[in-house]
Amino acid sequence: GLLPIDPSFKVAVKDYTDARLEAAISRMLRRLEGRTGLEFTRDPADDSTQATLLVQCQNAGKTIPSVDEDESYSLQVSANQAVLNSPTVVGALRGMETFLQLLDADSKGYHIPQVNIQDKPRFVWRGLLIDSGRHFLPVEAVKRTLDGMAAVKFNVLHWHLTEDQGFRVESRKFPKLHQMGSDGLYYTQDQMHEVVAYARERGIRVVPEFDMPGHTTSWFVGYPELASGPGPFQIGRKAGIYDNAMDPTREEVYRFIESFIGEMTTLFPDAYFHIGGDENNGKQWDANPKIQAFKKEKGFKDNHALQTYFNRRVLQILTKFGKKMVGWDEILQPDLPKDIVVQSWRGRDSLIQSAKLGYDSILSKGYYLDLMFPAADHYLVDPLPADSGLDDSQAKHIMGGEACMWGEWVGPETIDSRIWPRSAVVAERFWSPRTVTDVDDMYRRLSAISIQLEELGLTHETYVTKMLRRLARSNDVESLQTLLNVVEPVKKYERGKEHPSTMLTPLTRLIDTARPDAPARRKFAAMVDHLLSDTWNFQEHSGSLSLLFKQWHNVHSVSASMIDQSPILREAEPLFKDLAKLGAIGLETINYLVAGVPPSPEWRNEQLQWLEQAENPKAEVEFVVISSLRQLIIAAAELSQLKNLSPADWKSQIETTATKLNRKPVGD
Amino acid sequence: GLLPIDPSFKVAVKDYTDARLEAAISRMLRRLEGRTGLEFTRDPADDSTQATLLVQCQNAGKTIPSVDEDESYSLQVSANQAVLNSPTVVGALRGMETFLQLLDADSKGYHIPQVNIQDKPRFVWRGLLIDSGRHFLPVEAVKRTLDGMAAVKFNVLHWHLTEDQGFRVESRKFPKLHQMGSDGLYYTQDQMHEVVAYARERGIRVVPEFDMPGHTTSWFVGYPELASGPGPFQIGRKAGIYDNAMDPTREEVYRFIESFIGEMTTLFPDAYFHIGGDENNGKQWDANPKIQAFKKEKGFKDNHALQTYFNRRVLQILTKFGKKMVGWDEILQPDLPKDIVVQSWRGRDSLIQSAKLGYDSILSKGYYLDLMFPAADHYLVDPLPADSGLDDSQAKHIMGGEACMWGEWVGPETIDSRIWPRSAVVAERFWSPRTVTDVDDMYRRLSAISIQLEELGLTHETYVTKMLRRLARSNDVESLQTLLNVVEPVKKYERGKEHPSTMLTPLTRLIDTARPDAPARRKFAAMVDHLLSDTWNFQEHSGSLSLLFKQWHNVHSVSASMIDQSPILREAEPLFKDLAKLGAIGLETINYLVAGVPPSPEWRNEQLQWLEQAENPKAEVEFVVISSLRQLIIAAAELSQLKNLSPADWKSQIETTATKLNRKPVGD
Repeated sequence: GLLPIDPSFKVAVKDYTDARLEAAISRMLRRLEGRTGLEFTRDPADDSTQATLLVQCQNAGKTIPSVDEDESYSLQVSANQAVLNSPTVVGALRGMETFLQLLDADSKGYHIPQVNIQDKPRFVWRGLLIDSGRHFLPVEAVKRTLDGMAAVKFNVLHWHLTEDQGFRVESRKFPKLHQMGSDGLYYTQDQMHEVVAYARERGIRVVPEFDMPGHTTSWFVGYPELASGPGPFQIGRKAGIYDNAMDPTREEVYRFIESFIGEMTTLFPDAYFHIGGDENNGKQWDANPKIQAFKKEKGFKDNHALQTYFNRRVLQILTKFGKKMVGWDEILQPDLPKDIVVQSWRGRDSLIQSAKLGYDSILSKGYYLDLMFPAADHYLVDPLPADSGLDDSQAKHIMGGEACMWGEWVGPETIDSRIWPRSAVVAERFWSPRTVTDVDDMYRRLSAISIQLEELGLTHETYVTKMLRRLARSNDVESLQTLLNVVEPVKKYERGKEHPSTMLTPLTRLIDTARPDAPARRKFAAMVDHLLSDTWNFQEHSGSLSLLFKQWHNVHSVSASMIDQSPILREAEPLFKDLAKLGAIGLETINYLVAGVPPSPEWRNEQLQWLEQAENPKAEVEFVVISSLRQLIIAAAELSQLKNLSPADWKSQIETTATKLNRKPVGD
Repeated sequence: GLLPIDPSFKVAVKDYTDARLEAAISRMLRRLEGRTGLEFTRDPADDSTQATLLVQCQNAGKTIPSVDEDESYSLQVSANQAVLNSPTVVGALRGMETFLQLLDADSKGYHIPQVNIQDKPRFVWRGLLIDSGRHFLPVEAVKRTLDGMAAVKFNVLHWHLTEDQGFRVESRKFPKLHQMGSDGLYYTQDQMHEVVAYARERGIRVVPEFDMPGHTTSWFVGYPELASGPGPFQIGRKAGIYDNAMDPTREEVYRFIESFIGEMTTLFPDAYFHIGGDENNGKQWDANPKIQAFKKEKGFKDNHALQTYFNRRVLQILTKFGKKMVGWDEILQPDLPKDIVVQSWRGRDSLIQSAKLGYDSILSKGYYLDLMFPAADHYLVDPLPADSGLDDSQAKHIMGGEACMWGEWVGPETIDSRIWPRSAVVAERFWSPRTVTDVDDMYRRLSAISIQLEELGLTHETYVTKMLRRLARSNDVESLQTLLNVVEPVKKYERGKEHPSTMLTPLTRLIDTARPDAPARRKFAAMVDHLLSDTWNFQEHSGSLSLLFKQWHNVHSVSASMIDQSPILREAEPLFKDLAKLGAIGLETINYLVAGVPPSPEWRNEQLQWLEQAENPKAEVEFVVISSLRQLIIAAAELSQLKNLSPADWKSQIETTATKLNRKPVGD
């Protein structure tokens, strides 16, 4: 029951077709050719019964990608033919991505397994935010992000285009915005048209965000008259929340916004328009007597009320241009009309509250890729959990969610490694049923998807060795790679604290090369687990661990000369020392286990104490192997007490002890 | 005597400056920041004496990059300041690339060594040809090629834009050219403007080539009336020489060419214009009675004469548009005026003949990157060797040369690995004095340059693991990498013979992943050399070789399951078998050497015979370790005869025996 994929592979299209569908079929064929090395005919099948893949699409779907697009499809694969049915072109696109994921092989050749799939998304809003404001991303980077999004069935690019640190859009009406607010790094209007068209080809909406009234420093460099405080203003260089905010009391500010939004709506055809609205700390408002007087005059009891006034005014403008307003949590204030969308970044509670109040809502809390948490953490966050407490009519307001790739610490060279492959699990969360939550299975599939994402030109894997060679100024990066394998960037907002940086600091350090969710974390844990699971055969299972520990131990011998040749690696010196010691401890521990002789309590305590300090980040990266190594030490130390237990009980006891010693897991 | 590179690094510009120079300085600073991890100020130095790098540029130079641009510069580095002097902006650009190459470090930090450099190019025409005709290259690929070119001081992009297999330029006058001749893969006029501007920013000329009267099949798909033979025509799919050629007898053909060239001259401002002129086999001319009658009427004795007539006509058109004509060897026919440039692909003799006849000439023979020869082969070819026999006035006609990256077997994913880093040695040949020919030193420097080229976004290293993962459909590519390390693509025009392919065949096979000039060739030879050089201490030196041989031997155990999972690797099965056996032979040979007991003559002969067959390409790749392994076997076999010789004599004797057995070296 397999459909062979061989050189006779042909596609036929029945019922509806158009240029978008044909282009997507062509892209699919090229990827299939690339993987299999087979050359397929470029001619369509004469007779649809002879086609290997028959695409039966009913309709173009929406002209402009829309939140109410029908993305469903079915895919029936028999030994003779695969039939992809879809009501719309976008549905066919989704189905073709599934088809590509199904490619498999055995000794007879490539094939698609026999399946019968009826598929449609759980949520209509499945987004990824990229932040071109803090660090500019060239159009190529945006395009390959869109390719990756299409592959995992995201359907919204939330494009954060302006920030304190950069105004990235060409405005012909207000050219000083991009001319003075971007360091020359902005998208021309042609380029924005290009991105929107590229996204549409892939069934992806582009929702632009122009964050206001805060996060607007870069606007004020050219137009200080928009600000609540006195100028002149400089482009923001540091991360964090700025005091600067637009002046909500002046009519010319709204005239400016109206004129600007009017221009932007010609570039972004999506029905939704994001106005940010987050993190205005009100300090500039408080410091401005005229704004204070305005508040008093209008009877606004606080800055929230003033911001709600501002939001209402902006909403009127958006409504005039036929746009629906989207904003972050903070826009949710009493009395705002119900036809806005609230994007929750502050938590599940605000999301549920928003839905209860009748606002369409999308969840981003739990999907912040910039926090550097493992994929599993994001995977297990559900926009609409079983215990949400929402009734059906309220639940309908949960439109979906968005993974957010905030741009403080990413540039074109590193962003792929922060977005991919992790965000694929968020895309699955938004598409698949709530009940699909098997983490091990997710990681197994993620590893395959990661390779498929690379065929789209994404650089989340390949950038590593390149950066290592630059770091080491050498092709000999083995010991650096050994270190890199077992570290991850610091989590949450720890970056930049110990090693002060600005948006202009080069993103070429070790931390930039280190990837979130380092595969070594799970791999090393599995090795330790494997060793401890077969209680009385340490000798047999210790080989690969010993080899690894030796590798760790060996880094110290080469690191000094490497660092002298590459001062950028000076900060990694303590990491190399720690890794060498981790290797030494590992080897000693293995010796105790294999010999069946437990170490002294002093030795045990000394090692466990030392591990505590090794757990502290250095050079803004942290080891991912400490907690598993701790288990190994405890196992050795408790060897005699454990000897009478069954393997299962033994493992559970080790885990109990280790858990007590472990820090809180990341992401908590 | 070192100039420290630290966070206080500042650049000042004295005398002339402009946007091009400022942009180049900014690019240089970003690369320096990326390497060092330091953040430099964005403000120019107030006082030029305080600048770390002082750029003293005299003049803008040519508005349009020109063959008589002054590219010279001087660079004086003291412990306080680096001073870069140049008559033109392009000279300053060249000097900054040198400055970047000089960055070094020690335990105190980064620095530029104290140097005093007076530099200028040996040849004015230092080109790289890329062939977008046979396989289209997206604009990004062209741009990163230009970045690499600037880094190694190439100054001409020879852009081969039309071929039998593809017409890659948007023509508004004759839209059926790109619409019907390109599979939709062509450069818009905007994109061509963009590339020309990008090149100019880097001091690089763009010389477009529109090959005619042959190599024109893709033109005829839309305009069959241009052809000498009957249509209809299809876009060419196979490699090789086509019979199709323009009809040189019809006036409307020249009117078409004039109108087309007129349009193209608005896109390409360079003074030179390449009309190809190569490989017209004359078959279509011979088969056309009207053309035969025309020849008779005009008294042309052969097709060469007819082609010279065609060339003269085209030359008239080019002259009208103020362009100088460039063509391949074949255009050199008696009586052509002297103001054309001849590009020699057929050999040194034709180059010298051309210069003697007074034609400006450039050399490409010896620089064909698509032949897959090692860098050293290209490095040692000199456009104007000491024994050229040309007098000074004739020698002046040798303007330089061009490395040629013909596009039969490269696409955007693989082309970087074929161009880089090898073509850097051709660039050096064109820039540096004839006497710089130390191959070992070249390879040492090439290895450093390769890393610097990667910082420009070139993918010549990073594409490998990505392709291996796709080939294996797995992250576990260790054994595949072991195989890949010791093979190279077949040389010359062997590709496509055993494994018939067209321009539409995916370029994702093992051969595409294999790189020319595999570093393992030199590395393995050095290991063998090292072992044999210290005659009586085999034991001591055999460790790393034994480890490598074991790795080779081990591939066989994993290859079967990998191939079942990836039928695209089926063709590699015999390679894995051979590599496993090479490993086994290597291990046995080491054992003989270490034990001091020579193998039997039968054993020796058996292995040497087997090596003969292992040397045959399989899956269109070939092992690069055979000849060194042969030396090792001979050394073991002749152990007793050799024992009385000095180490030097011993090595020479092994080499003599091995050389007899070796095939001709590649590139011969």
